[in-house]
Amino acid sequence: MTKNQQWLIDGQPRGRALRESDFKRQSVDLAPLEADCARIRVEVLGFDPSMKGQMENIGYAAATSQGDVMGASGIGEVVESNAPRLKVGDKVLGRLGWQEFADVRAREVQTIPDDDLLTARLGPVGTTGLTAYFGLFRNGRPQPGDTLVVSGAAGATGSIVGQLGRLAGCRVIGIAGGAEKCSWLVDELRYDAAIDYKNEPVKVRLKEFCPDGVDVFFDNVGGSILNDVLARIALNARVVVCGGISRYEAEDLPPGPANYMNLIFQRATMAGFLLTDYAAEFPRAQARLESWIRSGEILHKEDVQQGFENIPATLLRLFSGKNFGKQLLRI
Amino acid sequence: MTKNQQWLIDGQPRGRALRESDFKRQSVDLAPLEADCARIRVEVLGFDPSMKGQMENIGYAAATSQGDVMGASGIGEVVESNAPRLKVGDKVLGRLGWQEFADVRAREVQTIPDDDLLTARLGPVGTTGLTAYFGLFRNGRPQPGDTLVVSGAAGATGSIVGQLGRLAGCRVIGIAGGAEKCSWLVDELRYDAAIDYKNEPVKVRLKEFCPDGVDVFFDNVGGSILNDVLARIALNARVVVCGGISRYEAEDLPPGPANYMNLIFQRATMAGFLLTDYAAEFPRAQARLESWIRSGEILHKEDVQQGFENIPATLLRLFSGKNFGKQLLRI
Repeated sequence: MTKNQQWLIDGQPRGRALRESDFKRQSVDLAPLEADCARIRVEVLGFDPSMKGQMENIGYAAATSQGDVMGASGIGEVVESNAPRLKVGDKVLGRLGWQEFADVRAREVQTIPDDDLLTARLGPVGTTGLTAYFGLFRNGRPQPGDTLVVSGAAGATGSIVGQLGRLAGCRVIGIAGGAEKCSWLVDELRYDAAIDYKNEPVKVRLKEFCPDGVDVFFDNVGGSILNDVLARIALNARVVVCGGISRYEAEDLPPGPANYMNLIFQRATMAGFLLTDYAAEFPRAQARLESWIRSGEILHKEDVQQGFENIPATLLRLFSGKNFGKQLLRI
Repeated sequence: MTKNQQWLIDGQPRGRALRESDFKRQSVDLAPLEADCARIRVEVLGFDPSMKGQMENIGYAAATSQGDVMGASGIGEVVESNAPRLKVGDKVLGRLGWQEFADVRAREVQTIPDDDLLTARLGPVGTTGLTAYFGLFRNGRPQPGDTLVVSGAAGATGSIVGQLGRLAGCRVIGIAGGAEKCSWLVDELRYDAAIDYKNEPVKVRLKEFCPDGVDVFFDNVGGSILNDVLARIALNARVVVCGGISRYEAEDLPPGPANYMNLIFQRATMAGFLLTDYAAEFPRAQARLESWIRSGEILHKEDVQQGFENIPATLLRLFSGKNFGKQLLRI
């Protein structure tokens, strides 16, 4: 254990699709471990569309530079420690990055139990679930009887949003790509209906499934889907802008939704939010998410790829819609 | 007094610019006045961009049909009355329409004092002022120290918004078309700065005048101005969608603002509102607007055209940006 394998940022994907060649592999010598630090063997990495934005230095992510180890959340095991709080064998969660070993300060990682929800802490019990929880409950403010529409509904965030909406008493309509994802939403996650945007006319189906309009729209996609839903918002609707996967690889900034002025006619609100604003409430929200997952009220799916060499290709899966469930990779 | 001159709707301007030929003049016999009704001689008409939307039957206005007398707010004098509440000589305000005489039920009009604020009740003390008041104070939620940007700032609504923002302790930046309007904003209305979108680079000026970002944006225009301001919104910004004059004459629905996703990064809100939601609070708001106008805290400007034959051409002034101040016409 003297060498560390890493994937570095080696391209600026702004205004174009991400490519595997935007990353460069290198092998470096491991330095002696510093005081109050621990060495973590990275075991599982989590993937998220915002990682492209992070490489572009836009929005909310920490700035990155060419040549940096690609930043990413991960779970690993302590293999060496100078930090009293971390013992060899402990499982930890943190920003470990795309590498085999991460040297971290004790306060930079969180010790987590090695239980059945271990990898769920990168997904439905982690920032993915928290994004769904605070985005829906605080910004969407769902009420029993409301019609909730979720785009990217079979994605890691969207699939939790829809189920949280069901717990809140909403009728839940999911929009996803492909029959397999749509069946999963209805048959397994108990969505009231699903629209396969790849094979069905979204506008027509929205009209059919939302005869009284859309009270809450949780958008992960943007583009024509956002525009079509804006045309059907109900009085006092809340549009939660969470993401815009349809936009992230466009060369020029795509236009916004032409129907935005329907916000006036329906006295509706379209708002963004950032998860970090709710940090003080994370423990309570995580405890609830854990308990719903343990009781089976909330199901989740993981898409687990394998192998250090496949890390860049795994990130690309998110933008092609190939992933089905929270995208993870086991090194 | 046996004939009534009227302007009827005779065209559907959806998806194109309004034309004078969208209206047809006719002369009809006045019928005997019905019970509990009064006959009003229309003296002053008010004009508003939403009147085009009303002809298109979109949004919030009452449905209209080809051949209807064009609907419009106006002020007039009672010339005959079967209604105990209305006496000959009373001044009234109501939906009188584009005609010389309007027969109305007593409850359809409001008696108003024949004072120095008579025509202001079609503007800054009427729905125009109320739109500014509730849109800014309820949706914009300005705080002292905030930077407020107003588009269409020299318009009937925008000019009140900026002055209300000043009263609320904001720095106020107006966007308007032409040097004359911009000078008026700064020299007379005491805006902190004005941007002449016809002759200045809006993006560059916004950066210069709003170094800490835009806390509240009150938008009457849409299009590239909305997009440029969205690029500069501050943390927790409120974007009040009031109108979109740049869009009303477009053939195809123009795209929305490409920068809408900045709502996420800035945790910002973009919301519409309708004035009627605040009806219960109109009297209090009108009393305040009146007192600010009487004390000179709020200035207002009227653009008064003359003559029954010029009514359609006067409406067109709003869409070419020719009007300067609240557009009125004295018959």
